[in-house]
Amino acid sequence: MAKAKKRRANQLREISVKRHFTNKAPGSVLFSAGNTVVLCTASVENSVPPWMEGKGKGWITAEYNMLPSSTSPRKRRDRGKVDGRTTEIQRLIGRSIRAVADLDALGERSIAIDCDVLQADGGTRTASITGAYIAVMDAINSFRNELPNPGKSPLRDSLAAVSVGIIDGKAYLDLDYELDFAADVDMNVVMTGKGQFVEIQGTGEESTFSEDQLGELLGLAKKGIRQLTKIQKTALDN
Amino acid sequence: MAKAKKRRANQLREISVKRHFTNKAPGSVLFSAGNTVVLCTASVENSVPPWMEGKGKGWITAEYNMLPSSTSPRKRRDRGKVDGRTTEIQRLIGRSIRAVADLDALGERSIAIDCDVLQADGGTRTASITGAYIAVMDAINSFRNELPNPGKSPLRDSLAAVSVGIIDGKAYLDLDYELDFAADVDMNVVMTGKGQFVEIQGTGEESTFSEDQLGELLGLAKKGIRQLTKIQKTALDN
Amino acid sequence: MAKAKKRRANQLREISVKRHFTNKAPGSVLFSAGNTVVLCTASVENSVPPWMEGKGKGWITAEYNMLPSSTSPRKRRDRGKVDGRTTEIQRLIGRSIRAVADLDALGERSIAIDCDVLQADGGTRTASITGAYIAVMDAINSFRNELPNPGKSPLRDSLAAVSVGIIDGKAYLDLDYELDFAADVDMNVVMTGKGQFVEIQGTGEESTFSEDQLGELLGLAKKGIRQLTKIQKTALDN
Amino acid sequence: MAKAKKRRANQLREISVKRHFTNKAPGSVLFSAGNTVVLCTASVENSVPPWMEGKGKGWITAEYNMLPSSTSPRKRRDRGKVDGRTTEIQRLIGRSIRAVADLDALGERSIAIDCDVLQADGGTRTASITGAYIAVMDAINSFRNELPNPGKSPLRDSLAAVSVGIIDGKAYLDLDYELDFAADVDMNVVMTGKGQFVEIQGTGEESTFSEDQLGELLGLAKKGIRQLTKIQKTALDN
Amino acid sequence: MAKAKKRRANQLREISVKRHFTNKAPGSVLFSAGNTVVLCTASVENSVPPWMEGKGKGWITAEYNMLPSSTSPRKRRDRGKVDGRTTEIQRLIGRSIRAVADLDALGERSIAIDCDVLQADGGTRTASITGAYIAVMDAINSFRNELPNPGKSPLRDSLAAVSVGIIDGKAYLDLDYELDFAADVDMNVVMTGKGQFVEIQGTGEESTFSEDQLGELLGLAKKGIRQLTKIQKTALDN
Amino acid sequence: MAKAKKRRANQLREISVKRHFTNKAPGSVLFSAGNTVVLCTASVENSVPPWMEGKGKGWITAEYNMLPSSTSPRKRRDRGKVDGRTTEIQRLIGRSIRAVADLDALGERSIAIDCDVLQADGGTRTASITGAYIAVMDAINSFRNELPNPGKSPLRDSLAAVSVGIIDGKAYLDLDYELDFAADVDMNVVMTGKGQFVEIQGTGEESTFSEDQLGELLGLAKKGIRQLTKIQKTALDN
Repeated sequence: MAKAKKRRANQLREISVKRHFTNKAPGSVLFSAGNTVVLCTASVENSVPPWMEGKGKGWITAEYNMLPSSTSPRKRRDRGKVDGRTTEIQRLIGRSIRAVADLDALGERSIAIDCDVLQADGGTRTASITGAYIAVMDAINSFRNELPNPGKSPLRDSLAAVSVGIIDGKAYLDLDYELDFAADVDMNVVMTGKGQFVEIQGTGEESTFSEDQLGELLGLAKKGIRQLTKIQKTALDN
Repeated sequence: MAKAKKRRANQLREISVKRHFTNKAPGSVLFSAGNTVVLCTASVENSVPPWMEGKGKGWITAEYNMLPSSTSPRKRRDRGKVDGRTTEIQRLIGRSIRAVADLDALGERSIAIDCDVLQADGGTRTASITGAYIAVMDAINSFRNELPNPGKSPLRDSLAAVSVGIIDGKAYLDLDYELDFAADVDMNVVMTGKGQFVEIQGTGEESTFSEDQLGELLGLAKKGIRQLTKIQKTALDN
Repeated sequence: MAKAKKRRANQLREISVKRHFTNKAPGSVLFSAGNTVVLCTASVENSVPPWMEGKGKGWITAEYNMLPSSTSPRKRRDRGKVDGRTTEIQRLIGRSIRAVADLDALGERSIAIDCDVLQADGGTRTASITGAYIAVMDAINSFRNELPNPGKSPLRDSLAAVSVGIIDGKAYLDLDYELDFAADVDMNVVMTGKGQFVEIQGTGEESTFSEDQLGELLGLAKKGIRQLTKIQKTALDN
Repeated sequence: MAKAKKRRANQLREISVKRHFTNKAPGSVLFSAGNTVVLCTASVENSVPPWMEGKGKGWITAEYNMLPSSTSPRKRRDRGKVDGRTTEIQRLIGRSIRAVADLDALGERSIAIDCDVLQADGGTRTASITGAYIAVMDAINSFRNELPNPGKSPLRDSLAAVSVGIIDGKAYLDLDYELDFAADVDMNVVMTGKGQFVEIQGTGEESTFSEDQLGELLGLAKKGIRQLTKIQKTALDN
Repeated sequence: MAKAKKRRANQLREISVKRHFTNKAPGSVLFSAGNTVVLCTASVENSVPPWMEGKGKGWITAEYNMLPSSTSPRKRRDRGKVDGRTTEIQRLIGRSIRAVADLDALGERSIAIDCDVLQADGGTRTASITGAYIAVMDAINSFRNELPNPGKSPLRDSLAAVSVGIIDGKAYLDLDYELDFAADVDMNVVMTGKGQFVEIQGTGEESTFSEDQLGELLGLAKKGIRQLTKIQKTALDN
Repeated sequence: MAKAKKRRANQLREISVKRHFTNKAPGSVLFSAGNTVVLCTASVENSVPPWMEGKGKGWITAEYNMLPSSTSPRKRRDRGKVDGRTTEIQRLIGRSIRAVADLDALGERSIAIDCDVLQADGGTRTASITGAYIAVMDAINSFRNELPNPGKSPLRDSLAAVSVGIIDGKAYLDLDYELDFAADVDMNVVMTGKGQFVEIQGTGEESTFSEDQLGELLGLAKKGIRQLTKIQKTALDN
């Protein structure tokens, strides 16, 4: 798979999108950002959880998982107990997609997103969100003609995510593992294609950051998201 | 316990701090923000986790828990499995306190923070952080004379947290349960006494927000944190 | 909180009762016996477990938990697995309250008792029972007017509990941690206000005891229960 | 296996003891009381738990289990989670045997008692204790010559247990399932061969009992224990 | 229990069958092959799992367990987690019995087989299957008169199992623990009384085997199964 | 991914092998048999489990997992508890590879095989074994120069596996999901490149099979294994 080229601090890693990578789920996208590779799938079920039945609304959930061989040294398989990081990430993915979704327009259907990381080199949660958006679009298109109003997409806007960070006082876009490890401040930004924020998670890793630094990070993130949005559009148009 | 008075959108709830509420842990603070009541304790152990031994550094961890009777209807006790929300909150508390801590200055000691929510009315995670800071200060003072340099606090700055949110387009400070439930955007901000950010977690709850709204929320949060910092200082001076 | 005074072998520790300590559950009692402090709450639900449905009877259950900071050194939180001691104690609390309850008079309601130990200095299970009785009375009074026969209490008698023990051949009432640790024989007695036994649990801790010693222990326990019954009555009359 | 004959209220069920029932553990006793049949084994290991190492003392533990086919309808196997009743019973068995044991005389050895109920008809915990005493004696005899002082038994006294109860105001000895089910008060008594109490667990099952009733129950229990002690002695002498 | 005599490579161990060993389950067989002793029981319930309801068919399941004292050193009890070996064996037992069962002829009944190993000396899974067949026959006979067609057995054929193996190039029948430990190839064969295969599980234990060796092993297994079938028939005729 | 063509009963599905599919583990093979796609990786660690330390020998383990989106409808993720089937399959994979391995020649190294099924259409366990052999070869080659005797492979022979089955009396090679579902007898055969058996698992699915049928199945399996062995050789030579 793709090897990351030397890049500038404000440059995204090389992005690759392969739709229909597997054939059991209607949405199946192999999404790569440099050496980070995630299989994002979206499966559809014609039912909703018990607590949502009879409301005519749909539901979208997400699960995230790293394959043991996605890291070196090998990661122990998440059996027995899902760790806190996994729970946090999969909640973020689900919440983000739902923020652009019109659940009423889905009808009583569930979309289950699975983001399985095949190769991890930083930014697996933002790659998951960016890839999952495409998989969900493919899943929706698989049943769109069955919707009462097929002309209106159940997703109101596109969605992408990227990480930014501060290393030795300098702001960087799209952190790979090496940059992420070095970062004093680490921020994940989820935005829509129209430039609305969905989620901002900025963390001083045993560190703090000023208001000016916050401004610089958000600017960089917006630039990255705009590029990802274009890549998503191109992939879905093919 | 205190009943919240009618208050303005930019006003904190009534804050109350009771130090030394229980006597087994050196830091034990009953912290209330309106009807939210959290028992924040800090226990000290003269050892560190195995992977930190021999480095002369300390460690700080946090656990968060809601008592079943802290909500109505009663919440099931967290036995068997810690849910994702709990994991996320206790990681946030620990990470935030460590961001202002000088772990080298602690020596090979562990501080275990426990935030047990006795009564929940929104903002339990921010109340936990604000109260935990006081408990940790009390715990540190219990062994300060044993430190190589007792004059230098192992905490570099004070720490407080508050929530802000947008309801029907209007920004609110310090959301109680009712406001939190109504909020389209919900943001938790953790800051130091000197005005540095430690953590920003802004979430569009099935919703999105613009850059202008982000600016307004951050302004409101800074105002609240300044007041909480004063209250912490007063409590610790008594 | 209260510091235990020097007391005689046949004397109870100082008892304190604070009703309505928190406001989410109708019964919420902060009960202290010397340095042992337990938050006893009673929540009400208008349903019963599936196996009791449709019988017109109510149900009462109890859970017991020690907060990590309630002991020194800090106790690990009961996550993953409830230990045997916890299970045994919460079964005892539930069984004892049910022994004085008229479940038919409750209607199809469940009362969930939670005994969360904030500070532990011996006798937490007996303090839990004595405090829980008051919390359950408050919970019952919150819906008493909805009962078919509001004049008749669903509790047939009051209930209190105390520990007794033998140390170096001498009998002691209401063991704190230090006495409990030293005791060769340890006995918990649960009795009603009218002097009927509900439960006797006498254990030779790697030791044995004679019939005469048994008699002396039971006499001391009855004396303590009579005093606790008066304190409960006074608290509920306020 | 033995069918219980019609018996008087103050009479034990028919008792049967088969030593060396299986051959992998040095102590292996098939103990029956009427239709209750328990396989009590005692295994020996030449080590103690980590927290006891280097003290020259031994340790004794017990586990209790009901085979699924020991009851009708079939009981679910205790996998995943040990229920409260099981934990309570196995703690009782271990504690009772240790009360007559001289752990110093054992040397650094562990004895693991396993009580597996093959057929359950009430009184499985008291049968377990009475049978376990014999299995432990056999296990001790298997290494007695290796002890510093082989002439002195590491058990100071024999040990037996029996249940008693009140049904319609009348006291009964050695409750089988039918009697146990009908009992308003249920009491398990563990005593030594010399007549010292080790444990008294008296429970009003949603009921209460008076001091006179307590006296009657204890008298009946002592009578039963004396007979069981004789049966144990005869079995060990063969 | 029986001590294995010196035997030839093509000879079964001494087999013993005790029906009605316990009295709570309609089928209860103590089956021994040399020093391997298994209690095989079959319980009946007048219902089937939810996913089979309303089809008029029955269901048969099996659980397998080794008692801690069945081996030396003592085996840890299967609590918390069932290990892979246990799962594999109990699936094999259930699948094998169902292969000769006519589930339609059972009506909506479940038979639960429990194979609890009291003493283990190799071949516990094959002993379990051979003993379970007898227990299931007894269980079926307990309700046979309630079947629509009592003359037709819900078991189409008898079933028995035996192990074979290769040690230093030589084939052996019915491996005890010592032989099993030494075996390079280990094979379990389940066959019907009429000589049809139900299951062949041949494993080179870190080793491989040729086609000729496979032929020799299967011949030996058939010989053993024929003898076991006779023993089963004799036991059931008594 | 590849769509299976119409094929004859004695014909393998279309096989595809992509080595170095991901880059964190030294062995990483995307193996497809028709619509069954498995990512087989082999990671290396310079240590062995505690019970093998100091023997100068290596160790090989395997884990198997189906991604949720590998089937339709989506499979629940294996969290909390590994099901019996998963345990059985991963034990089979590890045992099979070890049967051709010379663990002494590995030195004190562990190889962890992970077989993650991306797309499931029958035969995932045999595809896992066949692909895992190639991944392990790549992993071994990554450290072969560090071995004392690099000229001698730590694998003594190649290894492949295939399924065979009987449907309506006719034997079939390499069952896809549809054939597997219809099969009365299902057999997995693991063989070496030199034609030795490693494992034979033949199961009558609620059915039985004769000796003649066994012979036919084994013949078909040998034919398939010979072809797979050639495909493995070609892939490793590229």
